Amino acid sequence: MQSVFSEQLAKQFERIFYARSIAVVGASTDERKMGSRWVAGLILAGYKGAVYPVNPSGGEISGLKVYPRLTDIPGPVDLVISCIPRTHVLGLLDDCAAKQIGGISFFTAGFRETGEAEWIRVEEEMARRARSGGFRIIGPNCMGITCPEQGIPFGPSPLVNKAGSAAFVSQSGGHAGKLGTISLTRLIGLSKLASIGNCCDLGSADYLEYLAWDPKTSMVGMYLEGPRDSARLMKVMGMATRRKPVFVWKGGRTVAGARAATSHTGALAASAGVWSGALRQAGAVEVSGLDEMADTLLLYQSVGRLERANLGIICGLTDGGGGEAVLSGDACAAQGIEVTPFTDKTRRELLGLLGQVGSVLVNPVDVSQRTGNLQAFDRTIGIVAAEPNVDLIAVYENMDILLGFIGRPTTDLMNEIVSKARQKYGKPVVVVSHPGAFEKDRVDVESKLSEAGIPVFPSMDRAAKAIANVRQHCRMNPGQVAG
Amino acid sequence: MQSVFSEQLAKQFERIFYARSIAVVGASTDERKMGSRWVAGLILAGYKGAVYPVNPSGGEISGLKVYPRLTDIPGPVDLVISCIPRTHVLGLLDDCAAKQIGGISFFTAGFRETGEAEWIRVEEEMARRARSGGFRIIGPNCMGITCPEQGIPFGPSPLVNKAGSAAFVSQSGGHAGKLGTISLTRLIGLSKLASIGNCCDLGSADYLEYLAWDPKTSMVGMYLEGPRDSARLMKVMGMATRRKPVFVWKGGRTVAGARAATSHTGALAASAGVWSGALRQAGAVEVSGLDEMADTLLLYQSVGRLERANLGIICGLTDGGGGEAVLSGDACAAQGIEVTPFTDKTRRELLGLLGQVGSVLVNPVDVSQRTGNLQAFDRTIGIVAAEPNVDLIAVYENMDILLGFIGRPTTDLMNEIVSKARQKYGKPVVVVSHPGAFEKDRVDVESKLSEAGIPVFPSMDRAAKAIANVRQHCRMNPGQVAG
Repeated sequence: MQSVFSEQLAKQFERIFYARSIAVVGASTDERKMGSRWVAGLILAGYKGAVYPVNPSGGEISGLKVYPRLTDIPGPVDLVISCIPRTHVLGLLDDCAAKQIGGISFFTAGFRETGEAEWIRVEEEMARRARSGGFRIIGPNCMGITCPEQGIPFGPSPLVNKAGSAAFVSQSGGHAGKLGTISLTRLIGLSKLASIGNCCDLGSADYLEYLAWDPKTSMVGMYLEGPRDSARLMKVMGMATRRKPVFVWKGGRTVAGARAATSHTGALAASAGVWSGALRQAGAVEVSGLDEMADTLLLYQSVGRLERANLGIICGLTDGGGGEAVLSGDACAAQGIEVTPFTDKTRRELLGLLGQVGSVLVNPVDVSQRTGNLQAFDRTIGIVAAEPNVDLIAVYENMDILLGFIGRPTTDLMNEIVSKARQKYGKPVVVVSHPGAFEKDRVDVESKLSEAGIPVFPSMDRAAKAIANVRQHCRMNPGQVAG
Repeated sequence: MQSVFSEQLAKQFERIFYARSIAVVGASTDERKMGSRWVAGLILAGYKGAVYPVNPSGGEISGLKVYPRLTDIPGPVDLVISCIPRTHVLGLLDDCAAKQIGGISFFTAGFRETGEAEWIRVEEEMARRARSGGFRIIGPNCMGITCPEQGIPFGPSPLVNKAGSAAFVSQSGGHAGKLGTISLTRLIGLSKLASIGNCCDLGSADYLEYLAWDPKTSMVGMYLEGPRDSARLMKVMGMATRRKPVFVWKGGRTVAGARAATSHTGALAASAGVWSGALRQAGAVEVSGLDEMADTLLLYQSVGRLERANLGIICGLTDGGGGEAVLSGDACAAQGIEVTPFTDKTRRELLGLLGQVGSVLVNPVDVSQRTGNLQAFDRTIGIVAAEPNVDLIAVYENMDILLGFIGRPTTDLMNEIVSKARQKYGKPVVVVSHPGAFEKDRVDVESKLSEAGIPVFPSMDRAAKAIANVRQHCRMNPGQVAG
């Protein structure tokens, strides 16, 4: 099983993701230019390694000395970020070889994705020079790599994610960035994020191989358009999914999407059916969009493996639980998630606690009869958690009714109960909360829940889909060797 | 075609939705009780008619005299809201008859939905007393009716929606309320909102009949679990869809959902397939959730009929347009929405304006080469709008990149261009914007777009689905007699 694992590749990647020094070539003193933003981003993000701006005109950027040429930098350079025009890249690669760097990430674009023979040839030559120079290339045409643990932010931004165990590898820099910003708000902890671009050297299979064995990574998400190393990718994926879940979003599944993909990364699309079959064969779970990817990573971060995923649902926290109960049942059933009726014992306990009038007690349970009664709410979670048929609990919150009727202080108290429920009752808890009338307060309340480790989903459909994805991984990969 | 229209029913509904006086029976001086909230809600909402609190203990609530009994009120009463216990409703109905009211809405619950024979009999007796008393019943077990034009808020809340032309009829009070709060933020203008509860007297078909002919209503959304008047409903719906779109969300489509529905409104579920077939036969469009309902009403409010819905998509407003282009193509194709490649003329114009490197010019068009260039952005919209193959334009905004890189002022300027584009270039514009890192700013920016009449969708999937729903209505009902 270790057959595809290369120690050498791992060491190369370690030097890139945990770079102790980064040179930004094409750094600019003009604040409107991207070259200045890459430097500023590293500083603002609190990157602890050395930052070396490089520009022939010299001078100073953000208080740092600018070196005219990469080879002028006195110390060693682990990672180079290139922001120079495409016409200058080959010369830079010779300097990289001379400087014995670890890797270079090309924000520079305009190669294979243009479809022009001349620039495809340049891209091929770039790969050759990296091989002979003994370093690796990320991209070109990409946003490069992020490592929150090392303080390396996403692209030319100062945003650093919470360090955690989810990795995301993307053929789109935009999607990588968006996954990053969603993760900032929803507190998905990231081990590594990689925008891999055209993959003239390092390909999707290489990234996955490294991440599959990376002890800091417990799950991998991938956005793929049409990797050129797909045969090796599927082989590596088959190994990776024995160790940790791999969730794949395939872009360009349709004619319209594939047309855009061809212009974007120069990727050729195979038919969607071929992809789906190959991914299933490799034990990966296919997701259908960025939100679903984030939902699934967030859920796995919180609950880990789910061999069974029977849901106990609590709704109507203040009122309106009837419709929420119906909706929840439908949403779960559509994803094959069981909402098993409670046992008689549980129903009797709920009846004693909540009474009958207006309440649904069957699962979902509608607690609206005891509007705003914190003790009854806490007790309800306890009763539902004690059900042998319940593997995880979903609390359906209508923030409009909560904030509008019982107000922010009581809403916060209810959510403190939700936040403590897992530890108190031993079963994982997720929250469902739709946008509504009080958006800024909702954002506040949800971020507190996120800080407490409670995953929040904006609809029951999305929660149910994430649960189904995690369970599907576990069903396809029952004998997983590592978490 | 006018055969199902009853003048008498319309007059009864007009007296209810445009009530000039409302009595709240069971009004309470205890601010924690719902009876006090209904009174406060009407006052805070700015309801212009007379409000009469009724409670045997008399006194004053919110500065209003409390009448011991409904029949003690000096003037006429159009609408009664009942918050009293279920044990007292029959006596109240006799008073309603004596007072010659127009209608009574029962927040009071605990009847048919309990499944108990005794309370089912009481509910039947309520309907009999209304008939003999010459007035109508809304509910019981409901949040009642809302009419923004008349200043009647939703349920016991002070929230009044923007007056507009979308009506929503719901067997769930919670869903009615949530549709209302979503509409507050997304600025869906509402003509009427009705939480219809158990429908012991007025049934779903009655509401639809009224709304189909209501000149203030141009579209109707319905949430149905299992109306008891489904045969008449389908007949009325067949007529209604000849006049305006009817979008139906059927709750309890699955075993788990139907189980909850039985406890909720006492509704018996027919199979999902039977429902889908009947709705299609009646010319209605089926939607699958609350968000999709809101998306569809919002889109129809903005664009009206769409006989054709070829989409021109602009993405990469600052960067990251490649992945957005692929995603957009896939999302639209999944809903059967055409993203037709631009004509050569358009592509030449876009090439001249945006250049090739890193840009997708085929549709979607990626404008990221001209990051933050307002003039180029405006011009791109103009070029895309001039395409004969484009019926409406979607602008894909990544607020994280906009706010993080070009900042709020420039983001606002770009959105001013978006807001003016329809008038300037003659084609409707929608915006797609996912949640991300800067949630409070995003909420602000989106609410400005909403105020400018631009519908905003949180994902391309959802925008595409709404477009497909509106187009489906137009395809099923080509010879519509009224907008």
